[in-house]
Amino acid sequence: MPEFKLHYFDLRARGEPIRLIFAYKGVPFEDVRYNFEEWPSKKESFPFGQLPVLDVDGKRLAQSKAIYRYLGRKFGLNGQDEWETAKLDETGELLNDFMDAIKEFLGDQLRKEKFIPALEKFGPWFKRQLDASGSGFFGKKVTFLDFGFASIFEGLAHFEPEAIREKVPFLEEHSKKVLALPELKEYLSKRKEQHV
Amino acid sequence: MPEFKLHYFDLRARGEPIRLIFAYKGVPFEDVRYNFEEWPSKKESFPFGQLPVLDVDGKRLAQSKAIYRYLGRKFGLNGQDEWETAKLDETGELLNDFMDAIKEFLGDQLRKEKFIPALEKFGPWFKRQLDASGSGFFGKKVTFLDFGFASIFEGLAHFEPEAIREKVPFLEEHSKKVLALPELKEYLSKRKEQHV
Repeated sequence: MPEFKLHYFDLRARGEPIRLIFAYKGVPFEDVRYNFEEWPSKKESFPFGQLPVLDVDGKRLAQSKAIYRYLGRKFGLNGQDEWETAKLDETGELLNDFMDAIKEFLGDQLRKEKFIPALEKFGPWFKRQLDASGSGFFGKKVTFLDFGFASIFEGLAHFEPEAIREKVPFLEEHSKKVLALPELKEYLSKRKEQHV
Repeated sequence: MPEFKLHYFDLRARGEPIRLIFAYKGVPFEDVRYNFEEWPSKKESFPFGQLPVLDVDGKRLAQSKAIYRYLGRKFGLNGQDEWETAKLDETGELLNDFMDAIKEFLGDQLRKEKFIPALEKFGPWFKRQLDASGSGFFGKKVTFLDFGFASIFEGLAHFEPEAIREKVPFLEEHSKKVLALPELKEYLSKRKEQHV
């Protein structure tokens, strides 16, 4: 197995799906976390000045979604066939559109204007994909995408419990199902308490 | 070969990389184009109310980037190994960030504020990936990503010839190289004159 080193901030956010994938597969990795004070002095040494970055035997891969998909392929956490892989990719892009739509949703006004409508718009599409798999996960088995959804909706359920429960209860259930996977138990028991 | 049907507007934009991939591979597809008058009445019949959508033997795949990657895998237009595939995916995400950065760039003021700085920021990163492959394409051979870049920078070179020539001449060259591929000759000779 190559040597993996994840560079990210001391946050869950875009880094946590990567950590969950490693935890689920029991693959060791170095979890380097930068604080916002030191980041400006480190920024230039990373491709595109952004995090997360994953080092694989010293070679660098940036762009969170490219990293998720790479690990999905590498660890057998992708679709079971080319069509399922394509549909997971489609749903991943849709999750990204959802995240774009809810950017800066905090505050009551924005919550009404953006967050609730986004849940109402995207929720049924996410549900359709979940229902289609019949497994309770987004694919016929656990895939990289489940860790993305679980990570995001665990956080949202903390900040907006009522909206999540009312509009997308199936995503709260999905997160709980993913985070109850026995392979994650040890990692989660030691995980730092954070909501972003 | 499955039956392919592309649903998109009567534009190049997000649909053209898909058309170029089919043309390059000599794979027939139905090129359905909607005009903006009829679209509102069609919108609801598409997943997520968005285009492009690709039908593959009647099954629907939405999300342009998921479609590009699906066809890349299906037609052998992806990386030669898992690392090259990951790096192409990274560069594709970066191209997407670039497109986000230049949204609504028309008009002199926005041009100065957004378009030129985006070319200066992203250009060197694109160049690094091009240089790394050594082939003149983004991968060691032609990949799906080359059709995305060629399609975008062909359009930009029409609207902003000086900026493109000054800041990212290597991307203008890249587009020309891709669009000069002999496999595309017949398609391009019949293609409708459009710049978006």
